[in-house]
Amino acid sequence: MIRPKCILLLSGGMDSTTLLGYLLDPRLEFVMCEIYPLSVNYGQKHVVELEAAKKVVEEYQKRNGNKVVKDLKILNFDLSQIGHSALTDSKWNIPENMEDQIQTVVPFRNTMLITLAAAYGESLGLNPINIYMTPVKEDFSAYRDCRRPFFTCLEKALSLGSTYGVEVFIHTPFVEKTKIEIVEIGTKLAVPYHLTHSCYKSKPACGKCPACVERLVAFEVNNLKDVIEYQKE
Amino acid sequence: MIRPKCILLLSGGMDSTTLLGYLLDPRLEFVMCEIYPLSVNYGQKHVVELEAAKKVVEEYQKRNGNKVVKDLKILNFDLSQIGHSALTDSKWNIPENMEDQIQTVVPFRNTMLITLAAAYGESLGLNPINIYMTPVKEDFSAYRDCRRPFFTCLEKALSLGSTYGVEVFIHTPFVEKTKIEIVEIGTKLAVPYHLTHSCYKSKPACGKCPACVERLVAFEVNNLKDVIEYQKE
Repeated sequence: MIRPKCILLLSGGMDSTTLLGYLLDPRLEFVMCEIYPLSVNYGQKHVVELEAAKKVVEEYQKRNGNKVVKDLKILNFDLSQIGHSALTDSKWNIPENMEDQIQTVVPFRNTMLITLAAAYGESLGLNPINIYMTPVKEDFSAYRDCRRPFFTCLEKALSLGSTYGVEVFIHTPFVEKTKIEIVEIGTKLAVPYHLTHSCYKSKPACGKCPACVERLVAFEVNNLKDVIEYQKE
Repeated sequence: MIRPKCILLLSGGMDSTTLLGYLLDPRLEFVMCEIYPLSVNYGQKHVVELEAAKKVVEEYQKRNGNKVVKDLKILNFDLSQIGHSALTDSKWNIPENMEDQIQTVVPFRNTMLITLAAAYGESLGLNPINIYMTPVKEDFSAYRDCRRPFFTCLEKALSLGSTYGVEVFIHTPFVEKTKIEIVEIGTKLAVPYHLTHSCYKSKPACGKCPACVERLVAFEVNNLKDVIEYQKE
């Protein structure tokens, strides 16, 4: 099975970085010849994650060449104009416990990110437009736009709405995987986790927000040390 | 049937302005109590249309009060970062004949506009989120994202992806109507066409681009004079 070109939505976090490494794994049953990484500055408070995305792309360009891993495209679409999320709204605080995770939902963010990816794919002349994204098992409960039925419906809508009738596919290979499994996969693939950023709050990472908690657990269960810097107590 | 609150995507052109007048028609079988008009500066060359949208909203606020017609919300989402359309790409020219209309498609623009409307609706606490938009019969051939099956699929995707499971409805009451019929409807409703803008190129209107041609035909067939200013030969 050949999937020669694709767009990868890259946040700079551990899940999408692992997927980049995974797509380049020569043992896969399909070969990905050209990956167009795409990041979006959507007004997230932790915009520092885009610096991580840049470093991750540079690292994989060193490993695989910039014919296979294209330069990172960064689009600016400021969802703080709508707000209504702890990640984008200056009037909301980043929650410090998992129970408040739903406050970190950005309304329809995934629809927006995927639609931008589809438009970028159309501008590149991709046919079909293959988009890779990394919802994971932990996202299921709080994030309705991280569930497979949503993606399956959205890819149909995008295929119906594409300018020339080109089909759009949204691939979510990690949607049933936990972050624990992802770190296990990524470690075998030598994913450069030291370059990634997950914290919703800051750099160094706070260690308390839902993104930090999930990340720390994933490394701990794998008996690994997360080598990024955390704030001291 | 009561549909108390809705978001209306308003471009400042004749179709969406007619829909605003239509939704406020007391003879309708449903009553629209609160209309939230939404315009998007998506990097269109004819951004002057947003000035028209503002004037249209002000006019209807005078007629119906600003409790019924809310202030215009303008969001900035610059699709010229992706380009690949005569409307947003500085390297493309606005076509001067109908045969090249497909060049005026902005990749996945309607998906983006509707998703922004849904996010805005969620931030306003609407339940359900009713969105009104004005694809028309002439749009069918060149614009695949103006066809009803696309909207029906997208509203399902958005409902699946909304943060709290609120349903999203995309209403397109003019999708089977021609612009000729729309001008007929709007004239009876005293729609302020003198405030609207359609031209893709400029103000005064060029009279030659696909948007101007369709508009001029719609008025002519209704034996009406289009009172906006056109460029002299």
